[in-house]
Amino acid sequence: MTTFTERLWGVSRSKRSLVCVGLDPDPDLMAVPDVLEFNKAIIDATRDLVCAYKPNVAFYEALGRPGLDALAGTVAYAHSVAPDVIVLGDAKRGDIASTNKMYARALFEVWGFDATTVNGYCGGEALEPFFEYEDRGSFVLCRTSNPGATEIQDRELSEENPPVLYYQYIATRAREWNARDNVGLVAGATYPEDLGAVRARCPGMPMLVPGVGSQSGDLGASVRLGLDADAFNLLVSSSRGIIYASRDPKDFADAARKATGNLRDEINRILEQEGRHWSEN
Amino acid sequence: MTTFTERLWGVSRSKRSLVCVGLDPDPDLMAVPDVLEFNKAIIDATRDLVCAYKPNVAFYEALGRPGLDALAGTVAYAHSVAPDVIVLGDAKRGDIASTNKMYARALFEVWGFDATTVNGYCGGEALEPFFEYEDRGSFVLCRTSNPGATEIQDRELSEENPPVLYYQYIATRAREWNARDNVGLVAGATYPEDLGAVRARCPGMPMLVPGVGSQSGDLGASVRLGLDADAFNLLVSSSRGIIYASRDPKDFADAARKATGNLRDEINRILEQEGRHWSEN
Repeated sequence: MTTFTERLWGVSRSKRSLVCVGLDPDPDLMAVPDVLEFNKAIIDATRDLVCAYKPNVAFYEALGRPGLDALAGTVAYAHSVAPDVIVLGDAKRGDIASTNKMYARALFEVWGFDATTVNGYCGGEALEPFFEYEDRGSFVLCRTSNPGATEIQDRELSEENPPVLYYQYIATRAREWNARDNVGLVAGATYPEDLGAVRARCPGMPMLVPGVGSQSGDLGASVRLGLDADAFNLLVSSSRGIIYASRDPKDFADAARKATGNLRDEINRILEQEGRHWSEN
Repeated sequence: MTTFTERLWGVSRSKRSLVCVGLDPDPDLMAVPDVLEFNKAIIDATRDLVCAYKPNVAFYEALGRPGLDALAGTVAYAHSVAPDVIVLGDAKRGDIASTNKMYARALFEVWGFDATTVNGYCGGEALEPFFEYEDRGSFVLCRTSNPGATEIQDRELSEENPPVLYYQYIATRAREWNARDNVGLVAGATYPEDLGAVRARCPGMPMLVPGVGSQSGDLGASVRLGLDADAFNLLVSSSRGIIYASRDPKDFADAARKATGNLRDEINRILEQEGRHWSEN
């Protein structure tokens, strides 16, 4: 059986792309008012350039039931026109095991996502219902991209020797939880050195990197420090910088394609500079 | 203006109850198959005995769109027949601020919850969009009730003096975040001593206590250690022990009423033993 991590790498390689496009519909910013129509246009314009789409479920939930209908339509559309591309439902769920069983069912069975993001605060025992979906990926929140992340994530743990920061400890635990080659990490491009620390602790695991584009993360450093030794195991996610590249109904899809292509090319140039080639694996 | 914490205490006092009934519909356990019908019967049977209902949104999401319709109906019904009772959407959301803005909108505006549960991993800056809803409560996950909670939550932080455990640090931060008297804590009855450590750090803040009933938390110790100095500021939540007390369509509502009354009375006996009286405030 192909594991989730192998599948993700297979898509990346066939597309020669580490780009994940975030589908975060905001009525104040969308070029056309209908969410599903908007997403379909973005998907049509970008599907040969990406390895993943990442709908952030919060944006759909905020729109009420019409938003959830649009999410269902978006997942179905992506699966139908781009069946190889990973659809990652960015949900950051995390509760005790009996509740996570329900969240995993919702995300993987009801919504049909190939992968999701999870919060590890309740520990590996609680996350097991996610991990038990062997062919689906669960990306554990490790180092988030926001300015206030350090308040919680940079606390130093004395019991580790040498002492480690909290997000580093989470990375170490996530590696332990990865019994089925289907656990990944989330580490933001706004803290590239920390992203590197996560990578060092988690060889062989895919890393989802938000924060490039409108959050001004450092793309070059993030790619260099986040690259894995063998497969690249990296997913660079951009939302606002791509889907709102133009807010004109006449050219927003073209602008999204251009922004996606630019991001892919820029990443591929960095790979080349690092002496890494798509044909190497 | 009445703050959220004051409102919660007002409901508790008028009902002489610290009981929160968890509405976690599981088709394998419900006495009747229709979720909304089931919840309405539970609400009708218990609404004079409780200060809060706590639908766990995972259970509704797992049922797909019919589940979400039932959730909408449940919230509307609870607000209509028990307008004073708090409806707490147990969602454990937590992401960066721009996403939390959408989650808060979904939970407080779309679903119409009076309160929710949040995950603080991204820090107070990220949670601010929840806290900005001044009249709504946000309960920060502190000490969860599951067996594996210690893996993450009991790590010792060296930079604090004296050293503290991670969940204690979260409690301290939550107190800092509580600028509008609308932030609470979640601390499970399965770790009553730890719940006491949270209380010691967070005077004046409401605490949601899951884990009594089927999770076998220690009710007596949890109430004693969780009680606040002035208002009681405690919400003791039971789900499976109440709503599945009977699985017979003929008497499940009566059984739920009986189990709710028993829990309320048992808590009130513990309060009396502690020399605390509903009339004191």
